[in-house]
Amino acid sequence: MRMQEVIEKVVNGVGVVTSRSGDKVNGLSVAWMSQVAINPPLVMVAIGKGKYTCDMIQESKVFAVNILSSRQVELAKLFGLQSGRKIDKFSKVEYETKKTRCPILKDCVAYLDCRLYSTAEAGDHVLFIGEVVDAQVKSKEQPLIYNSKEYF
Amino acid sequence: MRMQEVIEKVVNGVGVVTSRSGDKVNGLSVAWMSQVAINPPLVMVAIGKGKYTCDMIQESKVFAVNILSSRQVELAKLFGLQSGRKIDKFSKVEYETKKTRCPILKDCVAYLDCRLYSTAEAGDHVLFIGEVVDAQVKSKEQPLIYNSKEYF
Repeated sequence: MRMQEVIEKVVNGVGVVTSRSGDKVNGLSVAWMSQVAINPPLVMVAIGKGKYTCDMIQESKVFAVNILSSRQVELAKLFGLQSGRKIDKFSKVEYETKKTRCPILKDCVAYLDCRLYSTAEAGDHVLFIGEVVDAQVKSKEQPLIYNSKEYF
Repeated sequence: MRMQEVIEKVVNGVGVVTSRSGDKVNGLSVAWMSQVAINPPLVMVAIGKGKYTCDMIQESKVFAVNILSSRQVELAKLFGLQSGRKIDKFSKVEYETKKTRCPILKDCVAYLDCRLYSTAEAGDHVLFIGEVVDAQVKSKEQPLIYNSKEYF
């Protein structure tokens, strides 16, 4: 068994991490996320170097985590399989904005609106640690659990 | 709803993170863990500052993640509710060692044996990013999913 298949025994949910740059907004599907502190309330997302959303967070210092429900596999694929440099992923997806002005999906289990606290380099990814400045549960549905065999 | 309850919509599994210091070994239950890179294969665990295992990893620069199965809630509590400074958590738990000589539970879904790659401060926790140097699936059981209402 390949090492990657073993590491995938670590359970993750699925979120769409969004950010903005001026009037432009983008988001991508992420499984590698976790709370990392209580005081202050911090969450970590790991994003591939060079991704459009990675560049946006480094510039704007804000991001939002939108936690998807078990029904939203197609949305995870929409935000996971294409680059926002080429298409507007939000052209068919409704969103609003809160404190940081990053996109909050109208349809999600919960959102965590974050200001960048620190970053850490980690091989081919960048870890963004964000302080949660606003958060709300939007649905009682079960969160989607990541399965690499199904999508992105 | 309190912010912490919203953040808990981020899904995590449960692992026992172990380390060593000379002949002493210890471990604690952790939910805040995630893969964070593919090349090299990196995983992150967030551990409370001042925890015995936190000190051991900072000293030894090695740790192992033992992923628990849905049947191992009691083991999660054993490693989650007491400090290894006061009791020997491994007195009744069988383990072996591999490359890093950190404890690998004989009974777990999978283990990830790691050398410390880097650390990052994050409020009341420390993020340990480890390079996976050995990993193996040990059981076909489903991984345990963390539920803060149930334990630690």
